[in-house]
Amino acid sequence: MITRRTMLKAGIGAALPALAAPRAWSGPPPNIVLILADDLGYGDIGTFGSPNIRTPRIDALAAEGLKLTCMYAEPFCGPARAAMMTGCYPIRVAEPGNTKSRHTVLHDREITLAEVLRPAGYTSAMIGKWGLGGHSNNRWRAELLPPSQGFDVHFGTPASNDWPEDIVLLREGRMIEKAPDQAALPRRYADETIEFIRSSADKPFFVYFCPNMPHVALDASAEFRGGSPRGLYGDTIEELDFHVGRIVDEVARLGLANNTYVVFTSDNGPWIVKREDGGSAGPFRSGKASAWEGGFRVPCVIWAPGRIAPGRTSPEIMGLQDFFPTFAALANAAIPSDRVIDGLDSSGFINGDSERSPRNDFAYFLWTHLQAVRQGRWKLHLPRPRDPDWVAPLTPSDHVDPEDAAAIESPMLFDLRSDFGERYDLSREHPDIVANLLGFAESVRADMGDYDRLGRNVRLFDPLDKRPDAPMRVPY
Amino acid sequence: MITRRTMLKAGIGAALPALAAPRAWSGPPPNIVLILADDLGYGDIGTFGSPNIRTPRIDALAAEGLKLTCMYAEPFCGPARAAMMTGCYPIRVAEPGNTKSRHTVLHDREITLAEVLRPAGYTSAMIGKWGLGGHSNNRWRAELLPPSQGFDVHFGTPASNDWPEDIVLLREGRMIEKAPDQAALPRRYADETIEFIRSSADKPFFVYFCPNMPHVALDASAEFRGGSPRGLYGDTIEELDFHVGRIVDEVARLGLANNTYVVFTSDNGPWIVKREDGGSAGPFRSGKASAWEGGFRVPCVIWAPGRIAPGRTSPEIMGLQDFFPTFAALANAAIPSDRVIDGLDSSGFINGDSERSPRNDFAYFLWTHLQAVRQGRWKLHLPRPRDPDWVAPLTPSDHVDPEDAAAIESPMLFDLRSDFGERYDLSREHPDIVANLLGFAESVRADMGDYDRLGRNVRLFDPLDKRPDAPMRVPY
Repeated sequence: MITRRTMLKAGIGAALPALAAPRAWSGPPPNIVLILADDLGYGDIGTFGSPNIRTPRIDALAAEGLKLTCMYAEPFCGPARAAMMTGCYPIRVAEPGNTKSRHTVLHDREITLAEVLRPAGYTSAMIGKWGLGGHSNNRWRAELLPPSQGFDVHFGTPASNDWPEDIVLLREGRMIEKAPDQAALPRRYADETIEFIRSSADKPFFVYFCPNMPHVALDASAEFRGGSPRGLYGDTIEELDFHVGRIVDEVARLGLANNTYVVFTSDNGPWIVKREDGGSAGPFRSGKASAWEGGFRVPCVIWAPGRIAPGRTSPEIMGLQDFFPTFAALANAAIPSDRVIDGLDSSGFINGDSERSPRNDFAYFLWTHLQAVRQGRWKLHLPRPRDPDWVAPLTPSDHVDPEDAAAIESPMLFDLRSDFGERYDLSREHPDIVANLLGFAESVRADMGDYDRLGRNVRLFDPLDKRPDAPMRVPY
Repeated sequence: MITRRTMLKAGIGAALPALAAPRAWSGPPPNIVLILADDLGYGDIGTFGSPNIRTPRIDALAAEGLKLTCMYAEPFCGPARAAMMTGCYPIRVAEPGNTKSRHTVLHDREITLAEVLRPAGYTSAMIGKWGLGGHSNNRWRAELLPPSQGFDVHFGTPASNDWPEDIVLLREGRMIEKAPDQAALPRRYADETIEFIRSSADKPFFVYFCPNMPHVALDASAEFRGGSPRGLYGDTIEELDFHVGRIVDEVARLGLANNTYVVFTSDNGPWIVKREDGGSAGPFRSGKASAWEGGFRVPCVIWAPGRIAPGRTSPEIMGLQDFFPTFAALANAAIPSDRVIDGLDSSGFINGDSERSPRNDFAYFLWTHLQAVRQGRWKLHLPRPRDPDWVAPLTPSDHVDPEDAAAIESPMLFDLRSDFGERYDLSREHPDIVANLLGFAESVRADMGDYDRLGRNVRLFDPLDKRPDAPMRVPY
């Protein structure tokens, strides 16, 4: 285990990070198209059980590839994007000033997936919502935008649709439009993605495509508006599905299908308190902003003809942080060896060499609050008060379903194999398993911290006070 | 509207029922393979969102055919089978002695789908659980078994797995085995089905295949036991999926794929109080034995290459009773004109001539109790006491989830387009829609009755007291 001292020393002292030797993977480096939808729930995709949103193109990717039914995102956009880009649990990721914000902001010494792939010969594009330079459309840290984080091409919004009147569009880190037509963005994003793929077809490329939809405020183009039986929410997803199809068609047209991974997933569970404008967690309990499965579990399909056999479905556990070492391995790229990386190389699992994912456990942080842990089939919810102060900013922002704000008096144990809806507390029947999971929770806290304590292996690059002495805040 | 007087007169007076002229449908009469699983929930099939049950063959039928996300069954096995066989709401169906039993028993003057298809040249087989001659494995009415109800071939159990030690196996209406090995039945059923299809390949055939699984008591063959990440419950469904695949393969091998409809659906929502041995309603609330969507909504796929275009998904409403006139129309068979048939001919909808199903409304009866009605996107739950006496036999039998036994004080209105999980009561916002739906409920009661009144158009063939003077009971 890397100590905090070692990590700080390496992080501060080294201009270029030490890199671990890559696993040798046969064949040419594959292209990567990583699509991260915003607030799209597990139950909002046809093949994941939506009763009234039609996603034939994403369904086809699942049928022709790998469908993962236990992909763990994070319960909010910012932390999810941090996990995807850094390969770490968000609480571990350094932020400027040694604070932790709601929507994780990257420290410039954090190393993104694009930065890892660049030395392996990749050209990278970030298209769409970034969200890691400040959770705002009018204040953000320019040095934390994609052009400073390893991306060669950048086109999109700095943050989400939360404040639609303030939305701006950036290109290569610079503002090019104010208040762009939201209904036109899906097509513009897809066009930019297709153009990037065309212009990069002769070398390995990585596209990180983050649609702003179906995060509210919703909008869809005239072609799709009113077309879905699910209303405008469904329209936005059916339009997204269409553009996913266009991108896949272009990959195929260019003859790259046998050397490209296309991933479709989401950043967090559905924002169910938005009712008609929010999605469905399918069979899972609750949604965004909760530590129930509905908050963390998102649909995921991985398509790579010739590399991934068609028609496989797996309930094995993966987390967004696992894409970082997985794609590094597939690209023969080295990952940082000077810091803890939480992600596990799942390339052998994805490609079918193994039926088992390397991940057997997961820690459910709501912001910086450890609320639940999982090992194998067992998930333990940790005791917590009603509306704890340290997640209190959530309540007035209308994020949380009332039933999920309730206190948990004593640990609750669920068997996720059969009871994935988290209905039947089995803590009385299995005190030994409760004890084991409480021990695991304590080891997670020691490693990464909790809302009230500093973890041994969190990254704090700046010579300032350390959290939790610094208050949790929303930095620009 | 046919009056009760007309209906009774016709029903009692006519040895052969009057038949309505069939719609002329082009092409040769198609074969029909109608598969009705037992207690399998909406969320227990891969393409309907199961996280851990793998059903590649059923998923493929959906991808190559039509996936229906709003198929309404009934909340119990018996009523569902009555709806499928008679094309009517179960409360309308006549039973011996003018009573209504929990699990509807057919009156011998009821006309089944097999009886409708026979004059059109069809040979019919009933394989599996019948359940319409008495809900028991050791007492049933021989005259109501499949050989007396239009089926040329019969192999299976009279009732469900509720009393596993009593299960018997019948062939052509006669007992051939006591306590057959449950683990072997799925393969035996499939073998019989395949054999029937082979021997009937030169003429139109109808197979009504009703697996006993995944109704408890569960069992699976050695080949599948322990194979599913979902445990034994999942094993039984993965085994069923395998045998569905074998049947489809045989249809294709015989060159019949372009002239056969294969339907896969279920009789009611999942028996969720069975926990690990029960299934998932996916995104819907509650399960079997309730009037919430989870009790009624079941997965449904219809596969008919050359007749149904691949890859279509529809949230339009259908009910099990609609298969009766639909298949009659496709077979150029006449349906009875001497009685009310609730089913609506959906052949044009299924085949893609229309995007809209002819069904726009639905009545949710829990046994004989009208608990909810739907029109278009709106569903109204009707007020009811906690644990009403007239459904009380349910409670001790451990059918009902406690949350669903709660009283409903005033009508609750849900928008099923967006809120298919029935979370947000909109009755205050839309008093006009509540009033309309209360009016619709009253018209349903006048037509079909309710637990406390006799409907104008229910069928009572026997010269005896009429329900509700006769007590609800469980006949043998």
